[in-house]
Amino acid sequence: MSIPATQYGFVFTKKDGLKIRENMPVLEPKADQVLLKVDAVGLCHSDLHAIYDGFDFGDNYVMGHEIAGTIVKKGAMVDFWDLNTRVACFGPNSCGHCQLCRTGFENDCINVVNGWFGLGKNGGYQQYLLVEKPRNLVAIPDNVESSDAAAITDALLTPYHAMRLAGVRSGTKLLQIGAGGLGVNGIQIAKAFGAQVTVIDKKPEAVDVAKSLGADEVYSALPESTSPGSFDVAIDYVSTQGTFDTCQKYVRSKGNIVPVGLAAPRISFNLGDLALREINVLGSFWGTSSDLKECFDLVSKGKVKPKVTVAPLKQLPEYIVKLQNSAYEGRVVFKP
Amino acid sequence: MSIPATQYGFVFTKKDGLKIRENMPVLEPKADQVLLKVDAVGLCHSDLHAIYDGFDFGDNYVMGHEIAGTIVKKGAMVDFWDLNTRVACFGPNSCGHCQLCRTGFENDCINVVNGWFGLGKNGGYQQYLLVEKPRNLVAIPDNVESSDAAAITDALLTPYHAMRLAGVRSGTKLLQIGAGGLGVNGIQIAKAFGAQVTVIDKKPEAVDVAKSLGADEVYSALPESTSPGSFDVAIDYVSTQGTFDTCQKYVRSKGNIVPVGLAAPRISFNLGDLALREINVLGSFWGTSSDLKECFDLVSKGKVKPKVTVAPLKQLPEYIVKLQNSAYEGRVVFKP
Amino acid sequence: MSIPATQYGFVFTKKDGLKIRENMPVLEPKADQVLLKVDAVGLCHSDLHAIYDGFDFGDNYVMGHEIAGTIVKKGAMVDFWDLNTRVACFGPNSCGHCQLCRTGFENDCINVVNGWFGLGKNGGYQQYLLVEKPRNLVAIPDNVESSDAAAITDALLTPYHAMRLAGVRSGTKLLQIGAGGLGVNGIQIAKAFGAQVTVIDKKPEAVDVAKSLGADEVYSALPESTSPGSFDVAIDYVSTQGTFDTCQKYVRSKGNIVPVGLAAPRISFNLGDLALREINVLGSFWGTSSDLKECFDLVSKGKVKPKVTVAPLKQLPEYIVKLQNSAYEGRVVFKP
Amino acid sequence: MSIPATQYGFVFTKKDGLKIRENMPVLEPKADQVLLKVDAVGLCHSDLHAIYDGFDFGDNYVMGHEIAGTIVKKGAMVDFWDLNTRVACFGPNSCGHCQLCRTGFENDCINVVNGWFGLGKNGGYQQYLLVEKPRNLVAIPDNVESSDAAAITDALLTPYHAMRLAGVRSGTKLLQIGAGGLGVNGIQIAKAFGAQVTVIDKKPEAVDVAKSLGADEVYSALPESTSPGSFDVAIDYVSTQGTFDTCQKYVRSKGNIVPVGLAAPRISFNLGDLALREINVLGSFWGTSSDLKECFDLVSKGKVKPKVTVAPLKQLPEYIVKLQNSAYEGRVVFKP
Repeated sequence: MSIPATQYGFVFTKKDGLKIRENMPVLEPKADQVLLKVDAVGLCHSDLHAIYDGFDFGDNYVMGHEIAGTIVKKGAMVDFWDLNTRVACFGPNSCGHCQLCRTGFENDCINVVNGWFGLGKNGGYQQYLLVEKPRNLVAIPDNVESSDAAAITDALLTPYHAMRLAGVRSGTKLLQIGAGGLGVNGIQIAKAFGAQVTVIDKKPEAVDVAKSLGADEVYSALPESTSPGSFDVAIDYVSTQGTFDTCQKYVRSKGNIVPVGLAAPRISFNLGDLALREINVLGSFWGTSSDLKECFDLVSKGKVKPKVTVAPLKQLPEYIVKLQNSAYEGRVVFKP
Repeated sequence: MSIPATQYGFVFTKKDGLKIRENMPVLEPKADQVLLKVDAVGLCHSDLHAIYDGFDFGDNYVMGHEIAGTIVKKGAMVDFWDLNTRVACFGPNSCGHCQLCRTGFENDCINVVNGWFGLGKNGGYQQYLLVEKPRNLVAIPDNVESSDAAAITDALLTPYHAMRLAGVRSGTKLLQIGAGGLGVNGIQIAKAFGAQVTVIDKKPEAVDVAKSLGADEVYSALPESTSPGSFDVAIDYVSTQGTFDTCQKYVRSKGNIVPVGLAAPRISFNLGDLALREINVLGSFWGTSSDLKECFDLVSKGKVKPKVTVAPLKQLPEYIVKLQNSAYEGRVVFKP
Repeated sequence: MSIPATQYGFVFTKKDGLKIRENMPVLEPKADQVLLKVDAVGLCHSDLHAIYDGFDFGDNYVMGHEIAGTIVKKGAMVDFWDLNTRVACFGPNSCGHCQLCRTGFENDCINVVNGWFGLGKNGGYQQYLLVEKPRNLVAIPDNVESSDAAAITDALLTPYHAMRLAGVRSGTKLLQIGAGGLGVNGIQIAKAFGAQVTVIDKKPEAVDVAKSLGADEVYSALPESTSPGSFDVAIDYVSTQGTFDTCQKYVRSKGNIVPVGLAAPRISFNLGDLALREINVLGSFWGTSSDLKECFDLVSKGKVKPKVTVAPLKQLPEYIVKLQNSAYEGRVVFKP
Repeated sequence: MSIPATQYGFVFTKKDGLKIRENMPVLEPKADQVLLKVDAVGLCHSDLHAIYDGFDFGDNYVMGHEIAGTIVKKGAMVDFWDLNTRVACFGPNSCGHCQLCRTGFENDCINVVNGWFGLGKNGGYQQYLLVEKPRNLVAIPDNVESSDAAAITDALLTPYHAMRLAGVRSGTKLLQIGAGGLGVNGIQIAKAFGAQVTVIDKKPEAVDVAKSLGADEVYSALPESTSPGSFDVAIDYVSTQGTFDTCQKYVRSKGNIVPVGLAAPRISFNLGDLALREINVLGSFWGTSSDLKECFDLVSKGKVKPKVTVAPLKQLPEYIVKLQNSAYEGRVVFKP
């Protein structure tokens, strides 16, 4: 396969937002780096936060953090990857050296000098991506499509990790707020874990989707008759003050709440209730590469099927508008 | 020892607050109950919350939840306690039957029909206490005085439990907010665990006390030069919005915050920071009976020494006024 | 329902083994006790160990430790059970007071003065059973038959507990040795947990059974091509030296082995391999009452279906002979 | 500092055992490697196992796995180490890429192509050591001497890790078998953790040493009056069948046994007892780099002081003879 010298991509700058840029160089991997041909890259709400909401990840970088590609070139010292391997990028792009990386929390790596893939550091909204730390790649199973793989790296990994942190397992009574881009995968993962899943989503159309994915109960709001303390775990894919309050009210003593969504900048809890009932609020961010492998395994075995729409990368701008208007469900994944 | 037919005690009613009552009957234990002669009973901020702040634990009961006594009478079916044994009351007074009790979380017992000892249910501000569930007694080691034992049941147990939940251990960098009634014991426990303890307390006199108890560093506020993320665990014995914000700022990624104090009814956290750095906020309530045994062991071995002032029970009203004015440190324990 | 004054039962004595005894009194519950009408009681290999192999649980007691019944009489102080409730006996019959009971390990209770139900203490091979500690009863869900409930109390609870201790969860690669009385349930539980299950059983007929219950792979012996270290967890329902060696060889570094079977009195491990690969050998005994509730939940939701044959209790002696000859699979449960 | 072109070292070959070799080249670090000047290197029983007992780690390599040195040269791509930094080698020399490394178990890394430092791969019995994976270095605190640092990397790390795996903490009743090279550090660590330590060692002179290091009780054998089940955790630095049997007898229900020593090739456990009392046998190997940092912290804070004798490296052969004869206690550390 011949690799071109230049390519196009979508670059974010604080001055201009996200703009297409032509004639960008395809970079050459150094001795310990690899070059990916991007096969698929997903669009996520975090992109909107970076473009429009002032979430500051950096300036002047190619966006796109849900990335699947193929290794097309590698440096002389890269010995644990073969050319032509299909891989997904482990978004947190961790250093592998710090105390957090060494103790199993690489998603919380504090040495990410240049930011995460596509959020601060160059990502997948381009044709070829230089990967500086090939440790942050994960092989894609043969029977998993690259478009699904892209979505798995975040839209599936994030709920998976949250549920693992919260200890969701067989028999867990799980309250899930939201059945959108992450929530639709969350339902399937929870069922694969053997949990009993109650979903709340205000959008009428979400009810049928959630039911079809295996949710045991779906409501626009919990029935009046629901007893406080009915759930072992609450995962909140929205995280407004209102949804959090619902979680705190309905989670049992010694239960866990994981606010995954980022709708509100600050959220308050009822302190006396949190203390007396020993409720835990657990921060959860993206996921580990080990989680990512387990996510691929779930999809490869057919236990979870990401909802994905495929489009050409050049249509990215119009899909960003659609996402702002919530005009579709599941994930849009682009082919460069 | 002859047991009188009547006694005096301090009874809380919603109508009149806490008042002495004379000629109350000394109750007769049923087959599965025991009668305690109260040897020592501590005064706690929670009493003030119940009397003055509208914390609703119940009506018309004898207060006093830090209780040490001697078994002076027992029912025919009580086979695991001997007469004349010195015991402390396990305050949460748990049922022993519910799912929480059976899985090691008896302090979160949800079947406490009549409330906790001295907070809803009769407690220790009287001469003789009927104990309905003798499972909620813990033997006091021979070399631990009853007045210390009373303080241990809460002022030592509560910080002990919080630190166990938070995973404080050898080498843990601990940020402790507050060096008052609980905090003075918290410092000693943390040192017994092998932690590195930094204490913040605004009261100038607290600095010397905290240092003398083994705190590694004591400040009225953290030095400007302190890096955010410097601590593994933050235990907050005050829990205002301001102290919580300090905890969130200075705890490291994947660190734990335990808000033990109840100064504010609600507290808000920075959601983006909590999520991205995977910080946990852990509810902690009192402690388990197993924790209580371990606390007795720490005191018995001389590793922790509760700060206790002893006074006659009839002086309870004047000490309540002193506690409101924070006119003494450590614990006041009364002898009925 | 009228309760007779006398009944028959099967009593074990060291002198005569297990013999039917007529005209035994139906005991009267004391204030804190209940009387069960036995609805179903299972036969287990442990019975054979007690009768024939010299396992010493006590002398002169009614055997039968997998018990489902109905509460037909209760003492005046029993307030958390209603008459006519269908319940199962929690076999370890724990005290609820000791440190192990209070910290969530009631199956390891060390204060069982009179032994477990049917193994030292009177059990279910009779028509009416006096239950001295009603805390050791668990309600049976409406849609679970009493005969299934009896089998659940051991043949399902034991593998459930072993898998929980070993951390079996979604994606776990589980090696299971044996597809007999416990193993047939173990397969179903493992699948409900989301595990990948490989079963080894030498009996040719076990292959089809194991496959039909959901096992992913079933062998009489692992294929030569299997790599050592291929499994996360090994559960051994047989536990000879040979089966243990297979577990140690094929479990991965940092993996867990649980020897549930008791075929050999002693088993040796390869010390260098255990140390260098940090393998854990975990003791597992029966289960907790919390596990038992979760087992009922799994059966109630249709995720696990115990294999049960029902027979009249008077046929117990002939079924003991059949069990010695391994002439049937699954569990025999008797109706008194 | 000028680096010589050649050096001497002690090389192990299967044919000749451990022999000094002169005029070995000092290797040149590649882009991602560093060169250490060896400052101190310890002698360990594992060396004897490799030289005399047929433990097969490889052939034709420089021995010495307890290594402290100074970085004197580094490749162009090594950005997280500065020249002249004093560092210790993390012996397991882990890859940082495999699933075990990524989940916090880097000591169990399965990709160690060339073996551990000094046990299969070149180690510290030479003047200059080429370190291929600089991730496997840990900075030495300023106030810790290099000779102590060398001993810390194994003789302190190994007991530290074992105790962490076993959950030793404040109040733990610990039975420790052996007060030799590892045991003398084990005692100090256990006390730093707040444990209650009972030591058994047959050597009469060990009693005083163990007492002086803080052991609460020291015996040549446990007193007859000791109750079985008296200890929460047993750490066995010897691991013969006899010492293991002592551990199993005296550890409590739900207790942990860690056989750290490797005296016997195989060890057998009482299966019925292990199962019924839910005892765990936990494999423990060396330690993690995170543990190593915590060990340095303990020594830096003065909580643990390794026992070290310093000698010139050329005297290695005579000290090997002494170690075979157990003619000294603590660790011998050599200066090249």
